[in-house]
Amino acid sequence: MKKMLVGVLGPEGTFSESAVLSWARKKGERIELRYYDTISDAVEVLSKNEVEYSVVPIENSLEGSVGETLDALSREDVVIVGEILQPIEMCLVGRCRSLEEVKIIFSHPHALAQCRNFIRRLKGVKIRQADSTTHAAKLASESQTNGVAALSSESSAHRYNLDVLAYNVQDRESITRFVILEKAPHDKDKLSAPSPATGNDKTSILIYIKDRPGALYDILGEFANRNINLTKIESRPSKKALGDYMFYVDCDGHVEEKAVRDALLSIDKKVKMLKFLGSYPKA
Amino acid sequence: MKKMLVGVLGPEGTFSESAVLSWARKKGERIELRYYDTISDAVEVLSKNEVEYSVVPIENSLEGSVGETLDALSREDVVIVGEILQPIEMCLVGRCRSLEEVKIIFSHPHALAQCRNFIRRLKGVKIRQADSTTHAAKLASESQTNGVAALSSESSAHRYNLDVLAYNVQDRESITRFVILEKAPHDKDKLSAPSPATGNDKTSILIYIKDRPGALYDILGEFANRNINLTKIESRPSKKALGDYMFYVDCDGHVEEKAVRDALLSIDKKVKMLKFLGSYPKA
Repeated sequence: MKKMLVGVLGPEGTFSESAVLSWARKKGERIELRYYDTISDAVEVLSKNEVEYSVVPIENSLEGSVGETLDALSREDVVIVGEILQPIEMCLVGRCRSLEEVKIIFSHPHALAQCRNFIRRLKGVKIRQADSTTHAAKLASESQTNGVAALSSESSAHRYNLDVLAYNVQDRESITRFVILEKAPHDKDKLSAPSPATGNDKTSILIYIKDRPGALYDILGEFANRNINLTKIESRPSKKALGDYMFYVDCDGHVEEKAVRDALLSIDKKVKMLKFLGSYPKA
Repeated sequence: MKKMLVGVLGPEGTFSESAVLSWARKKGERIELRYYDTISDAVEVLSKNEVEYSVVPIENSLEGSVGETLDALSREDVVIVGEILQPIEMCLVGRCRSLEEVKIIFSHPHALAQCRNFIRRLKGVKIRQADSTTHAAKLASESQTNGVAALSSESSAHRYNLDVLAYNVQDRESITRFVILEKAPHDKDKLSAPSPATGNDKTSILIYIKDRPGALYDILGEFANRNINLTKIESRPSKKALGDYMFYVDCDGHVEEKAVRDALLSIDKKVKMLKFLGSYPKA
């Protein structure tokens, strides 16, 4: 069986890697991972045919949307073909004997934010940002001084020979949603989805609305009047001016279903720009 | 004249500090700044009466909303009494003689994201995250090896005795919106705003909507049917489950105006929770 080439945010040991591996296991797919430095890089390589799929984080239940991913979806010629939900279990890892010895904690800003309450209970601890949770574990392992720890995954503690000082230290249950992307098909119909309808699907679009009172209300009416449930609506700066937004919208259903297709066709006539991002099975 | 105590994200030299200083200059106010390590800290001290006002960043024209600020507004008993728009001019600062010598760039993740295109043009450069743009400049100044630079403000280059290698390196014009907060008044009317109407105001609310198709559409109708313009709508995770959101909404007008007040009173009856965040003059 041929191995599928999949692009992912590196280095090895990130939660992105775990998400892809557990998805491949479930599907019985043989995959080979390519690691990229940034989310943008992992998405852009699709158009160069370096990989068949890329898997990137799009939102977290505590921290919200990943802006870099939404921006890459808007910029690149890609389509979402699936999603993966991955629980994030953050650990405090290091070489200290007890929590009281910890003086400095390294981690990625999102991880630090997800563990805010835990960090506050450790009095007098200094916070340092790292490029990723895995890089934080590496920094803790390389430190010459005592009391340096990292918020990272259990697997990175094994990789860097660190002890787990505390398990599951995130403030609340934390789940990250990843999307599986491929190169957009070259099709005359801009609403064409590579994944067929399964009866339990989700559709994602990006829209740039005309600047007038009630414009967003009018668009949401196209969904509400057809009884289509919105599962997400998120504004992102258009990058043209402060307060000028694009909207990323997820709704229930597949573009092959009449109600969804009609809603998108009507919206397309009312907005400055509609980009179809894909219809795909719900995780 | 008494000095006003104002809380702000530290250390000295951040864009938050510049925003407050230019605002105080314009108002002719004498202020004394208190620096805090995190945005959450700068907001929470209001309820302890440590400061009279706090000024925190809420959104940037390239990067979008600041999640930590939206979460603090939801959690803390505070009210917005004003806003400040501050252009962000990012510089590459360091001790290298030319751009070609730069091998490592430190900065805050938001600053790195805002200068993505510039960084890509510098081939083979490694990126390292820092707690703030000011901290990045400090790290560059302390480095023993050549080729370490920081994306930071011009003022931090002066502070740490670094050269400016390139001016205005952000991808596009970048403006950050800051909000001025004070402790919420204890008033029976939950729609009471400390700042009086000026005729050119903005109103901010936070709402938690019932989970049913068309719920958001219905809420937006309360604004659209009264011809009230929405200037911002942003979803934030409720932190209860993936896909469960609160909405942060800004609209034109002051709560003392009948249309705005009626809209908020009607919305209050339709949602699980409405938190009034203030009516205040537009910047």
